Formats: sequence, structure tokens, C-alpha cells
Amino acid sequence: TLGEKAFRAVFLNLLRFDQTVIYANVQPDEREVINRFLTIEELCKIFDALEVEEMETIRFLKEMTPRLASAILSDMYMDNLADLLGRMSRSDLATYLNLLPKEQIQEVRELLNYHERTAGAIMTTEYISVNQNETVASVMEIVRKRASQAEIIYYVYVEDETEVLVGVVTLRELIMNDDSLTAKQFMKTNVFKVLVEDDQEIVAQRVKEYNFLAVPVVNTTDHLLGIITVDDIIDVMDEESTEDYSGLAGVKVDGDEQSPWISALHRMPWLLTLLLLGMSTASLINHFDSLVSQASILAVFISLITGTAGNAGTQSLAIAVRKISVQNYHKIWKIIRNEVITGIIIGVFAAISITIIVELWKHSLALGMVVGISMAAAITVANLAGSLIPILMDKIGVDPAVASGPFISTLSDLTSVLIYFSVAQIFINSIM
Amino acid sequence: TLGEKAFRAVFLNLLRFDQTVIYANVQPDEREVINRFLTIEELCKIFDALEVEEMETIRFLKEMTPRLASAILSDMYMDNLADLLGRMSRSDLATYLNLLPKEQIQEVRELLNYHERTAGAIMTTEYISVNQNETVASVMEIVRKRASQAEIIYYVYVEDETEVLVGVVTLRELIMNDDSLTAKQFMKTNVFKVLVEDDQEIVAQRVKEYNFLAVPVVNTTDHLLGIITVDDIIDVMDEESTEDYSGLAGVKVDGDEQSPWISALHRMPWLLTLLLLGMSTASLINHFDSLVSQASILAVFISLITGTAGNAGTQSLAIAVRKISVQNYHKIWKIIRNEVITGIIIGVFAAISITIIVELWKHSLALGMVVGISMAAAITVANLAGSLIPILMDKIGVDPAVASGPFISTLSDLTSVLIYFSVAQIFINSIM
Repeated sequence: TLGEKAFRAVFLNLLRFDQTVIYANVQPDEREVINRFLTIEELCKIFDALEVEEMETIRFLKEMTPRLASAILSDMYMDNLADLLGRMSRSDLATYLNLLPKEQIQEVRELLNYHERTAGAIMTTEYISVNQNETVASVMEIVRKRASQAEIIYYVYVEDETEVLVGVVTLRELIMNDDSLTAKQFMKTNVFKVLVEDDQEIVAQRVKEYNFLAVPVVNTTDHLLGIITVDDIIDVMDEESTEDYSGLAGVKVDGDEQSPWISALHRMPWLLTLLLLGMSTASLINHFDSLVSQASILAVFISLITGTAGNAGTQSLAIAVRKISVQNYHKIWKIIRNEVITGIIIGVFAAISITIIVELWKHSLALGMVVGISMAAAITVANLAGSLIPILMDKIGVDPAVASGPFISTLSDLTSVLIYFSVAQIFINSIM
Repeated sequence: TLGEKAFRAVFLNLLRFDQTVIYANVQPDEREVINRFLTIEELCKIFDALEVEEMETIRFLKEMTPRLASAILSDMYMDNLADLLGRMSRSDLATYLNLLPKEQIQEVRELLNYHERTAGAIMTTEYISVNQNETVASVMEIVRKRASQAEIIYYVYVEDETEVLVGVVTLRELIMNDDSLTAKQFMKTNVFKVLVEDDQEIVAQRVKEYNFLAVPVVNTTDHLLGIITVDDIIDVMDEESTEDYSGLAGVKVDGDEQSPWISALHRMPWLLTLLLLGMSTASLINHFDSLVSQASILAVFISLITGTAGNAGTQSLAIAVRKISVQNYHKIWKIIRNEVITGIIIGVFAAISITIIVELWKHSLALGMVVGISMAAAITVANLAGSLIPILMDKIGVDPAVASGPFISTLSDLTSVLIYFSVAQIFINSIM
């Protein structure tokens, strides 16, 4: 029809990402029309590119006939397919798995079995591999044949007779070399590769350093299982950095628009938990009530000491979280030691400054020293907590990014107050 | 010599990144040997990949004869060359510019003129472009010829007779299509491109969404000026996310090992500035001293109110900083409005909880209400400050990431205390 022609002319000229935005945001009946107007291949590309909440993608599948859904699913890249199926409910998974061709079911099941956040979980199986004795001409023929299905064709992986990964050649080298050379003669034999069980964050870190467009994923016997492409690496980097950032603020940062009610609902549990922790600080101050009654001047410096220690602790936390994500374990105790020493140095300087300020302001060296000593100790303890807690969490397998800045600073309020009033107690006679 | 042969066999088999690590970490005299054993082309690849502090790279150049340095520099990719030269002192820049061939001086000068953090500043000029009437066969011939110099050969950009960018073809399409087709017949005409003055963060954001390996950079008349490759996009993402993260913690987070003294020195100015801001809070509490003397119970809740408001403000800050980096300006007031409403909602809930807790604990509804009302108001103000301040900073051209979490929470201490004691003043007779 005329409408179909016009639609296809306009829609297919759009960039893929813009197509997905339109597809995801139109009404179901309009989507039904799009499903009719596009070929299965074209629809499949949209599904491969859809990065909206996966729940939505599942909804789009459910709007279709099972026949169309199965055609699209069986055409998708294996990593995206596994990702999508992995987020389905058990019953949906069973339904859609059964729509796939037998050999694909096997393959996707294997991908689904890899642990989340490992190389295996983000790799795809659509790569190009050849035997090391193939010539440039025959490799190019293979590339040409597989070009429409492979997720990336710019690297061709080279295997020996036992299917062990022994080299890699780039498409650039292939088109520059003589047709009669064999892969073995010019391949790079030192292949950068990752293990299937490697943590995705480590993989991303290394790709960032080594600047590859894709990395091969192997098992412990060096058999090629899949590849991870740079676009997936970018997603991992984005995910991990958003997580670190969110952790530091104690709030989920995702690009989505949310109503204030939803935002409040999400932030409330954490804030109320911290409120309870803050109550311990309040009851601690209450415990020292007689001290405050005797010298109300002590109240003046509570927020100064807790605030400064909280700031210092947050800095240590940020450093520690970042370092443990890229460092190996030997260095961990060094991180803590460095943070504590840094805390002592900063604490001493802050203490001297505040002692002088208080002496000038209140003409009481004793009070100045109480505030100064407390501040030095509070900062040191905050730095210890800020670096130790995320490291301990990492050791017991909890993501250290969860040890948020607000948590550290609220905890540091408690220790700071305890330190402050304990010191004040000792010097109370000199202060009054 | 035998040593040279052995060295080359081992060294050249290493991955590029590992070569750079070795090159950067050996002693100068050992580096001199490496310089002698490798060809200029091989050395150039190392310099292209060096991502250690640029100061070091400049030092390596200075260790060489001017002749060798000039040979390496004139062989480097233009974006890396411009990056390196752009960080030199004025006199070094003059020295090394003069070592380059004339036409390259012109080109690199142009790159150096683009504003920092724009597409122009990170693009490279080594791309492949062809006229739209070239056939697949002749395009492939051009690709083959340029393959050794071009930074990426997987996209070929297509221009019309007036050198306006009109399309793009991928190497994948080239090897799949018939030799006699012209580029015009199968190129994608809707080219994803960025303007030379676009902010690098926007460029990175869009490449992340659209999943390209490179994007063309054009001027306002759609003439191709360069391309940005995905590895540079990854570096930008890393840089920007580290910056946001560092800002939130009020501390520079870079992977480098630092001695505690250096760390302390870096963090001190900021912490001491905040200490002075904290002194305003202290003197404000001091101003209300008579109030505290009358009811020392007021001191108990200072840290609870400042802490909770600080946590809420940090959350708002994190959301605002992230959103303004990717959103357009119309939405900005909506961000502030949403954060304030979120603050009111959370504030009311927190107020109700704390009022009940205080009533149960201290059997004083009046005190509970003073704490509750203050907390609700303090949280709302903190959310306002947390979202408004980074946005204002962005408006006046200061990077909002500088409005760090510690700054917002210290500022929020001040407003929280002011609110708390003002409310307490009104109800003082009911509290005592």
C-alpha cells in the first residue's frame, strides 16, 4: 500500500537508535502496524538495539503472534537473546525457549548458565573463526559469507586443528595481505583474551587499556567460546560507574524520569534507616546531657566535628571503592594504611587550625584543645571506617558501592560524638 | 646483533599496552636501547598508545635525538599528536612543531585551536573518504592504500562533488556488495555526525546510545573535518565519570598510587575551606547559646537534623549533576521542582517518624514537633540547595561536578541549624 511504502521510506532512513525510541514509545496498535510493515530482519535489528527496560521488550513480544516472536528471537544476536530471556519469568522463559530452533535452545541455555557479571554472561557466540591453514582468499570468502550474521567481522580468530585459539587477524590485515598467504603466516599469536568466568568489570578495565573492538572469551583449555564487543564493554563501564556514583550518594541514579513520589519512595527506606542510626548519635549526646548542661559551649562544636569527619570519611570511601574495583588484593591493606595516615596528617593540621581559631574566638586554649584533639581523632577514625568498611564488604562478597557516603558519614557522626564528649569529659574542669 | 634479535622477538610479540608499560617504566638508558632496536614505525605505535601522564611522554621525547623525535611525531595519529603537543610548555611546543613537515604543522595547529573538551579537540584527521560515484572496486582499492595510515578503516565516508558529507558505507557492506555498484547506490544517507564544537560529553553520550565504532565530525556546512573513534569515546566516558564521582566525594580520584603526604596535601585545602564554612555553623549555634543553656536537650538533636538533611541534599546533588550533564536546558527547572517536592514528601515522613520517636522517648510532643518540623524544612532546603547549586554553576559555566557532596552537606549544616533553632525559639516555652 501507499501508506506502507511511505512509512518504510521514512522509518528505514532513521538511525537505528531513533527507530528503537519510536518503536518503544508508540501505542500498541501502532506498534502492530510497524510489525506488519517491516520485515522480520528489520524488526530483529530493532530488538537487538532495544535498550529500554527489558520488561518492556518482553511486553512487545507478548503483543505479537508467537510465530512472529519466534522468528525475531531466533534471528537475534545470541548475547542479546540470552540477556532478554534471562530477565523473563520462569513461565515466559519456558514459552519462548520452546519457540526457538533446537540447536539454538542448547546454545542459549549455555549462555544463561554463566554467572551474572562474568565475561560469559555478556559474550556473544556470533564470531568468525577459521583454521590457521586457510589462505587469505578463503578466509575472505568465509568472512563474506558470515558477514550478515556475525556481530563483528573486523577480527577473525584463528584456531589450530584441536580448535584451540592460536591467533587473530584483523580485516585490515586481510585486505592488505596477499591472497595466497595462510592465516598462520601473518596472524598475531599473542592474543588478548579473557576467561569465561572473569568479572565483567575486570574485562572492561582491560579493554579500556588495550583499546580493542572485541575480545575473545576462552575456557581454561583455550577453546574459544565467544566474543565480547566494545559496545557491550561501554555498557558495562556505564553500569559500573553509575553504580559507584550511586553508592557514593546513597541513591539510585538512572537516567529515567521519575515522579517525585516514586523518587521519595525509593530514597525513603535508606534515609529512614540512617535516621535510626542517627538516633543512636542523638541518644549518645543525651547520655552526655549533664556535660552539655554544665558547658553549653560544647554544643557549638558538635556539627563542626561531625561534619568535618564525615567529609574526610567520604573522601576515603570514594578512594577505597575505586581502588578495590581495579586493584588486586595484596594492595588492599596498603590502601587502608594510607588512608589512616592521610587522616592523621589532615587531622593534625585541622586540629592545629581549629585550636587557634577557638583560642582567638573564645579565649580558651583548653576548649580549643578539646575541639582540636577530638577533630584529629574523629577524622582518623572516619578515614579508617571509610576505607575499611567497603574493603570488608568486598571480602565477604557484597558490592562495596553499597557502603554509601551517607552511611559512612552517619556512622562517623556517632564515633565523632563519642570521641568529642569523651575528650570533653576529661577536660571538663578546664573548660568551665 | 644477537641481543637485538632476541629482544625484538620477545618485545614485538607482546600486546601493545604491555609494550607501553615496559617502555614507560624502564630506565632512560634501557629506553635508549629500545629506541635503537625498534624501527620508527614500531616506536610510533608505542607513542600512539602511551597513555601515561603526558609529561612523561614529553620526557621520553627529550631523551631522543631531535631527528628521531621528529620522525616519530610526524608518524603519529593526528589526534594523539595534537593531544601531546597541546600539553607541552610554550617553548617545547615551538621546538617540536618545527621538527614536523610543513603541511602537518598547519593541520596540527588547526586541531590545537579547537576548544578543550569539544569534538574538535578529540577528533583525528586520519579517516577515509571517497566520492559518491566511486565503485566498490575503486573504494576497496582506496581503502587498501590508506589502510596503513587511517586510524579506522571500517567506515568509509562518502562526499559529493562539493565535498559535503552525504553518506557512509561500512567495510562490511563493501565486501558484501557487487564490485560495480557505486557508493551512492548503497550508502546510508542518514549519517550520524557531530559538530566540531559539540561538547565531548554529549558526543560520548550519543555514541553510547547509537553504538558506533567512530563518528564523523563536521562543520556547520557539513564538510567533514575528522572522526572520533570509539577508543577515544571510552577515554572521555572514563574521564567524565571519574570527574562526577570525584566531585561527589570532594576528592580527586585517579588510579595513581600516592603517598599519604601527597594525598593529605591534595585534600587539605578543600577540607580546611569546609572547616571555615563549618565555623559559620558553629558561630550560629553559639548565637543561640542562651537557648541551649535553657534547654540542653536541644543539643541532642543537632547532629540528627544536620546529618539527615545532609544525606538528602547529597542525594539531590547526585541526581542533579548526572541529569544536567545529559539533559537539555528546558528540563532543568523540572529537575529542581521534582527534587524540592521529593524533599517535602521525604521530609514529612521523616518528620512524622521522628515526632513519634521523640514523643515515645522524651514524652514531649512539643519537642517532637520542633524536631520534626525542623527536619522537614531542613530536608526540603537541602534538596533545593543540592539541585539548584550545581545547576546555577552549570549556567555560569563552572563544572557542576565541583559542587561536591561535602560542600552541599556542610552548607546544609548551616541552614539546618538555623531552621532548627529558629523553630525551637518559637516553641521554647513548651519544650522546657
